[in-house]
Amino acid sequence: MRQSQLFTKTSKTAPKDEKAVNAKLLIRAGFVRKMSAGIYAYLPLGWRVIQKIANIVREEMNAIGGEELLMPTLVAKEYWEKSKRWDNDVVYKTEESSAIGHQSSYGLGWTHEEVITYLATHFINSYKDLPAVRHGLPLAVYQIQNKFRNEPRAKNGLLRGREFLMKDLYSFHIDKADLDQYYEQVTGAYKKVFQRLSLDTKITEAAGGAFTQEYTHEFQVLSPAGEDEIFYCAKCDFSQNKEIFQGKAGDKCQKCGDNIQQSNAIEVGNVFKLGTRYSEAFDLRVTNKEGKKDLVVMGSYGIGITRAMATLVEVYNDDKGIVWPEAVAPFKVHLIALGGKEKSKIEKEADKVYNQLEKAGVEVLYDDRDVSAGEKLGDADLLGMPYRAVISEKTGDKIELKRRNKDGVQSVSVTELLKLLK
Amino acid sequence: MRQSQLFTKTSKTAPKDEKAVNAKLLIRAGFVRKMSAGIYAYLPLGWRVIQKIANIVREEMNAIGGEELLMPTLVAKEYWEKSKRWDNDVVYKTEESSAIGHQSSYGLGWTHEEVITYLATHFINSYKDLPAVRHGLPLAVYQIQNKFRNEPRAKNGLLRGREFLMKDLYSFHIDKADLDQYYEQVTGAYKKVFQRLSLDTKITEAAGGAFTQEYTHEFQVLSPAGEDEIFYCAKCDFSQNKEIFQGKAGDKCQKCGDNIQQSNAIEVGNVFKLGTRYSEAFDLRVTNKEGKKDLVVMGSYGIGITRAMATLVEVYNDDKGIVWPEAVAPFKVHLIALGGKEKSKIEKEADKVYNQLEKAGVEVLYDDRDVSAGEKLGDADLLGMPYRAVISEKTGDKIELKRRNKDGVQSVSVTELLKLLK
Repeated sequence: MRQSQLFTKTSKTAPKDEKAVNAKLLIRAGFVRKMSAGIYAYLPLGWRVIQKIANIVREEMNAIGGEELLMPTLVAKEYWEKSKRWDNDVVYKTEESSAIGHQSSYGLGWTHEEVITYLATHFINSYKDLPAVRHGLPLAVYQIQNKFRNEPRAKNGLLRGREFLMKDLYSFHIDKADLDQYYEQVTGAYKKVFQRLSLDTKITEAAGGAFTQEYTHEFQVLSPAGEDEIFYCAKCDFSQNKEIFQGKAGDKCQKCGDNIQQSNAIEVGNVFKLGTRYSEAFDLRVTNKEGKKDLVVMGSYGIGITRAMATLVEVYNDDKGIVWPEAVAPFKVHLIALGGKEKSKIEKEADKVYNQLEKAGVEVLYDDRDVSAGEKLGDADLLGMPYRAVISEKTGDKIELKRRNKDGVQSVSVTELLKLLK
Repeated sequence: MRQSQLFTKTSKTAPKDEKAVNAKLLIRAGFVRKMSAGIYAYLPLGWRVIQKIANIVREEMNAIGGEELLMPTLVAKEYWEKSKRWDNDVVYKTEESSAIGHQSSYGLGWTHEEVITYLATHFINSYKDLPAVRHGLPLAVYQIQNKFRNEPRAKNGLLRGREFLMKDLYSFHIDKADLDQYYEQVTGAYKKVFQRLSLDTKITEAAGGAFTQEYTHEFQVLSPAGEDEIFYCAKCDFSQNKEIFQGKAGDKCQKCGDNIQQSNAIEVGNVFKLGTRYSEAFDLRVTNKEGKKDLVVMGSYGIGITRAMATLVEVYNDDKGIVWPEAVAPFKVHLIALGGKEKSKIEKEADKVYNQLEKAGVEVLYDDRDVSAGEKLGDADLLGMPYRAVISEKTGDKIELKRRNKDGVQSVSVTELLKLLK
């Protein structure tokens, strides 16, 4: 698209109340804007990144049999009471209003175990409805949705919001063995998601499993901005959350003997065996082969979509701005026309290249604005598209191509550019 | 997908508290489920329909220069106060909570004029930022998002919900003439949207325009389920909402002299000239060519996404179930294997056809369940895919193909089937 038509503009400075690198850069580049503490609007460029992240997650969830749906945000008190989660400080509650004859109060969905378990009672009744007997495929549903949590301290930019986008997947099983098997499948899918997002994650053991002595697992990205602390081995796959790790940095890894390291980390995903906590609360049972009623065994699996965007910014930035990995960049290439003395000729040439790129299906942001070369080049670095293509008096009939994450430029013809970017 | 793997099942009866045809059929077919009055969960089949509607809307909004973004649901009191819309019964408000040091109260977004106008103040400062000077293209942004309205009587199924999905587009203009021009463009885009959705709309004049004596326009679908009443001419394009129409059914049309008719109707979309109401509230101004500050002129344009789904069900159904138009059907074809005596042979054949359809990119729901022929055929009618393809002992090496909206069947080979559906 033409940058002159973009709703947003960049700004030289970030709002003073933002401390986190992710918020500073995303706001300066016009990807997001803060509305209140912990609450952001996702502007066109940011929304493109979010949609790309969401689509990668979607593809990998579909690949393991996940069916997409959407649950409500307004979840009536009665559902939370069944699971004893109404009295939770994290829940935003609507005021009870009798003024217009409507008395009930809702809690805004901050997670959806209650809703999905209630919904499942309408459709899961027999062991035949569950995966083990259904072509070996799981019964699992997911949504990508805004969640609400009344965080006392909404700091750290988009890493800890009061309203944020999350993918939550829920699975239903005849027994623990079936859940265990699917839990591994989901873990595999998560590995693929984060690999595609260029996020290097440590699969980290944490407390809270539904079954005795079993851990849940968090997908942690090492980063000084992370609010979690993990102890991990750089040589093998050992990693534990601070809460459960017994020892200290420098200890020998219990798996391979190497040195244990300590780091702050950002939790971008988690997998969790719920067991029967919610099926008990909502009486979700299936008739088994003997005609008896068994509680359904459940799993729950989250990925923070907007947190993933923020994490990418924390990991991929330099002193000039954001450096988006190709899979999530809003546009693949930033085409820049630097007019100079031969302005109209250069612009004509750039328009032509822009149309050719568009026609070839290359996602291109075209800086056709009437601003200085310095501003254009500075904005390109701040916005962080993987490629920058400059057309100027200097480039002649060639185009100067630069990768955002590499030094040095190359001079290419239009044909070569199209071939490289297609 | 295989129907045996679908999260939902159909049911013979609808919940007793649902009076509306749309809710009854959508619930029976497993497309949605009610959680509370006016609040529904959108289940996998329903979510597929919603995504198809949303994507059609998206394409047409992009075609008129709309940039997609996402604004928050939690909108702090201070924003609503600026426009004097905090004291509005329709707004769900969160309880103020001092328990964890967080005092502010939010109104849940039921429309986003306040938010978008606030956001625009960061990016629109000069007349150069506005459409007239930007290649003649508008500056307009939209989102597709769940909205919240505390409706006193949430009846009529998904036609009037407390939480529902809406597309809202906002545009920014240098003057009224520019807005007028874009208003026509949006009207044209809306015509395309509803045509693609197979919804026949009357563009209906209604009260509420920001400029003297000007009307706003509603896109109304004639239906006994509609809560609106309109007076229209069947011969020409005259149509007015009950509120403004001066006269009665049977009067002569003031445009063409034909008889005016009266009907209930469902408002699926509207276009609205906001004028400067919100730019005044948020001091959204641009420096004009003379260096003076002018208020920005705005427009706002809505389409009810979930309401469109409900309207389609109201318009396209028969005594057996839903009859989806092809553009929004969750799947194009419902493939049904009727086992009989040669069960394993039939199933093998059907599996093969299923795989061929999938490979060809045809969206197919394959009823591979171990249930009676009557149940399969009944479900196919209830779910309402445009095509039903039956493989049974009777069909031999052919397939019996039926259109949901037509009587009569035809016998086709697999090759013909693929050609027809591709």
